[in-house]
Amino acid sequence: MRIISGRGIADSVGQFCVAAIGAALAIVLWLGCGKVGAAGETKPNIIILFADDLGYGDLGCYGHPTIHTPNLDRMAAEGMKFTQFYSAASVCTPSRAALLTGRLPIRSGMCSDRRRVLFPDSAGGLPDDEITIAEALHRQGYATACIGKWHLGHLPQYLPRRHGFDYYFGLPYSNDMQNQRRGDPPLPLLRNEEIIEQPAVQQTLTRRYTEEAVAFIRRSKDQPFFLYLPYTFPHVPLYASEAFQGRSRRGLYGDVVEELDASVGTILEVIRREGLAERTLVFFTSDNGPWLTQRLDGGSAGLLRDGKGCTFEGGMRVPAIAWWPGTIAPGRTCHDLACTMDLFPTSLGLAGAELPQDRPIDGVDMMPLFRGESGLRRVMFYYRGTRLMAVRVGPFKAHFYTQPAYGPGSDTPVPHDPPLLYQLEHDPSEQFDVAQKHPDVLAEIASIVEEHRRTLVPGMPQLDAVIQSTK
Amino acid sequence: MRIISGRGIADSVGQFCVAAIGAALAIVLWLGCGKVGAAGETKPNIIILFADDLGYGDLGCYGHPTIHTPNLDRMAAEGMKFTQFYSAASVCTPSRAALLTGRLPIRSGMCSDRRRVLFPDSAGGLPDDEITIAEALHRQGYATACIGKWHLGHLPQYLPRRHGFDYYFGLPYSNDMQNQRRGDPPLPLLRNEEIIEQPAVQQTLTRRYTEEAVAFIRRSKDQPFFLYLPYTFPHVPLYASEAFQGRSRRGLYGDVVEELDASVGTILEVIRREGLAERTLVFFTSDNGPWLTQRLDGGSAGLLRDGKGCTFEGGMRVPAIAWWPGTIAPGRTCHDLACTMDLFPTSLGLAGAELPQDRPIDGVDMMPLFRGESGLRRVMFYYRGTRLMAVRVGPFKAHFYTQPAYGPGSDTPVPHDPPLLYQLEHDPSEQFDVAQKHPDVLAEIASIVEEHRRTLVPGMPQLDAVIQSTK
Repeated sequence: MRIISGRGIADSVGQFCVAAIGAALAIVLWLGCGKVGAAGETKPNIIILFADDLGYGDLGCYGHPTIHTPNLDRMAAEGMKFTQFYSAASVCTPSRAALLTGRLPIRSGMCSDRRRVLFPDSAGGLPDDEITIAEALHRQGYATACIGKWHLGHLPQYLPRRHGFDYYFGLPYSNDMQNQRRGDPPLPLLRNEEIIEQPAVQQTLTRRYTEEAVAFIRRSKDQPFFLYLPYTFPHVPLYASEAFQGRSRRGLYGDVVEELDASVGTILEVIRREGLAERTLVFFTSDNGPWLTQRLDGGSAGLLRDGKGCTFEGGMRVPAIAWWPGTIAPGRTCHDLACTMDLFPTSLGLAGAELPQDRPIDGVDMMPLFRGESGLRRVMFYYRGTRLMAVRVGPFKAHFYTQPAYGPGSDTPVPHDPPLLYQLEHDPSEQFDVAQKHPDVLAEIASIVEEHRRTLVPGMPQLDAVIQSTK
Repeated sequence: MRIISGRGIADSVGQFCVAAIGAALAIVLWLGCGKVGAAGETKPNIIILFADDLGYGDLGCYGHPTIHTPNLDRMAAEGMKFTQFYSAASVCTPSRAALLTGRLPIRSGMCSDRRRVLFPDSAGGLPDDEITIAEALHRQGYATACIGKWHLGHLPQYLPRRHGFDYYFGLPYSNDMQNQRRGDPPLPLLRNEEIIEQPAVQQTLTRRYTEEAVAFIRRSKDQPFFLYLPYTFPHVPLYASEAFQGRSRRGLYGDVVEELDASVGTILEVIRREGLAERTLVFFTSDNGPWLTQRLDGGSAGLLRDGKGCTFEGGMRVPAIAWWPGTIAPGRTCHDLACTMDLFPTSLGLAGAELPQDRPIDGVDMMPLFRGESGLRRVMFYYRGTRLMAVRVGPFKAHFYTQPAYGPGSDTPVPHDPPLLYQLEHDPSEQFDVAQKHPDVLAEIASIVEEHRRTLVPGMPQLDAVIQSTK
């Protein structure tokens, strides 16, 4: 077991303290919380299914005309579909760091303006003193597994089992990171810390992730469990199992998404069959928008502007579906703001774990949303690397800088003073600047930004350091 | 009763003939058709709900993030949602002519390169010798009503009751056609041929259409009926009833669409309560894509390119939902090609009416699609006025000309030789020309176009003639 560095508490003591707090909290929950944590009930299981580069418009229930996703559509019909749900960054590494820690990537140092994500030659990773969902839930007695793409540091000290996961199976970084000229090794597939296949056979990855997930659920079903399943796809290069090749009207990209859809279907079916449906929250979303430069190998942001890598909506607004029969009413659409960082307090709350008090947490507990309440989150910060590009407050989004993901102008951020202002609920495609009409909104946003900047303490940068080559 | 001109048969005789054919057909249906027309069953009711300028991306179930359409979403969940369904034209008048006649607008003369739709000073209208769904169904004993926007000729000889409808309530043309400088009269609201309000109070139009529709359904429920309800909105100028003003997150456009959604909900509820659900086909669609030049008063084509007025997908691909409990299985998505012209043979087939044999019919019966079969329609012609701009064959669309709906280049069609070729199922946003890769497809499309041109007989133009002013 590990040490929570920066607090200096030996882990066994820490475990004791946390257990004591957990017990106290459990009592509070028993007294105050109704359904969850009521006497005699076990804590709910939590499953996060996390697609890679899946765009806002890529599912049937989000309007794609030719990608057939009956399982995700059914998940939405039985659960809650979000229409204004965000990833915390428009690229992979910072997005994942934020999901697992509930904190803006800049706080953990997991973003950079030089190298936007971690690479096979990176020396950094998610700092030891960050607290992940897995870590917090593990202390509450959860079995925990990460099955899929990690991308928060591939060196031993950064791997999932150093961050609260009991078990790991998957790729340590993106599936396109095997650039021989850069000196990348063949793509490794890991079980725990051991490389079990190199290069990883990508064609069967989704199938094997699914099998691993099912096995984990079956062996963990008698205790509460947390499964984090960050799929490798539809990030390029695209691969689908034989059973899915050539099946989709949308071509290879569709095959790959349809295999993901089937994987989700398999997992939900296992949850149902094992009788776990009423005590398992399953949350599906994506790490950022579609990679449009990949042309037909990239996805679609639907009606949203631009895609992966930028702070227009297409880069950061993603599909999101929450499923929990008996707790989330079926067929609901949630038009409220929410984001991947909200999964941290939501999960901790369900597990009866206290939120860390020694650091800012940017997430907001989503349980009230799941129960049909609204209006919890008003503010979204859109960072690109360490630069605050835009802020959303209510329906209004102010762009202080814009920089498209590709094409003309993609090299340099363009400053806007006054900022461009879009009313996103009227104008989801960010076409009509209404700054002149809303000086009051600009003033409110300016004060929110000022407060944010004043109090923000950036973490030690993790993405720029490179391993010294031994060649 | 009226004469079928161009055939020279007095109506009473015609009625007799049609009745005889109908009886013969009914026997065939009894023998061969299973559910519909089985002995002792009454013919199904048919309701067509037709929005105006509603875009492909404007409903919740088609991915709009902030327009809340629970009734249409439920209709889709209980029925069949189409993802590749087309209107027959990208503007109003030709689109409506095609829906009601099952024929390309060029065959009826209901399109033009000079005046794209009918105006209050137009002298033309839907020719007397065209056969509408209403006319064919009326002869099969259906009660028929048109409630809403007609736009197929406002002079007495063109109004709905001259085209097979027993009853009419609505506007004779678009709700923006009250240009005083052009000499337009104040907007008239008609009941049958009588002006009952002028200018029409637009704010309550959707509510009154709904009330009229409900009254028609209730008074016609003991016989088969055909209700054609072409809503006035969300065509500009936008108006919503008091109960819907300010209700939508999407602003006024959302209020208007949400009132339409509520109207659909009311109509389906009446159908259910009257016990008619299992013998009523309800079909919802739109006359063309969103009017993008109206900015926030116009809708969204979602991921499709461009909008109303052009032959890119955004101009002509529209939302479409078919609902018929007991016949259409719930929750189906149909990815097949289909179009508004298909409603003509579908409706006639259900009513036991023979298709006209003396003219080309461009529609294809959709009943097999409703039952879950596929692959019926392979070809779609995209006309702009009288010019054939593009052709879709299977997933491929060849643009012989392009002309965006607005902005740079919108004045003049640009010819393409070889045509631009898009694989629409891979590339719904029409971004990647694949002509060079598919000479075989180009050859097939060329031969289909040649055959089409060789056999096409354009109708007498109806849209250019103007009433001689008496001022």
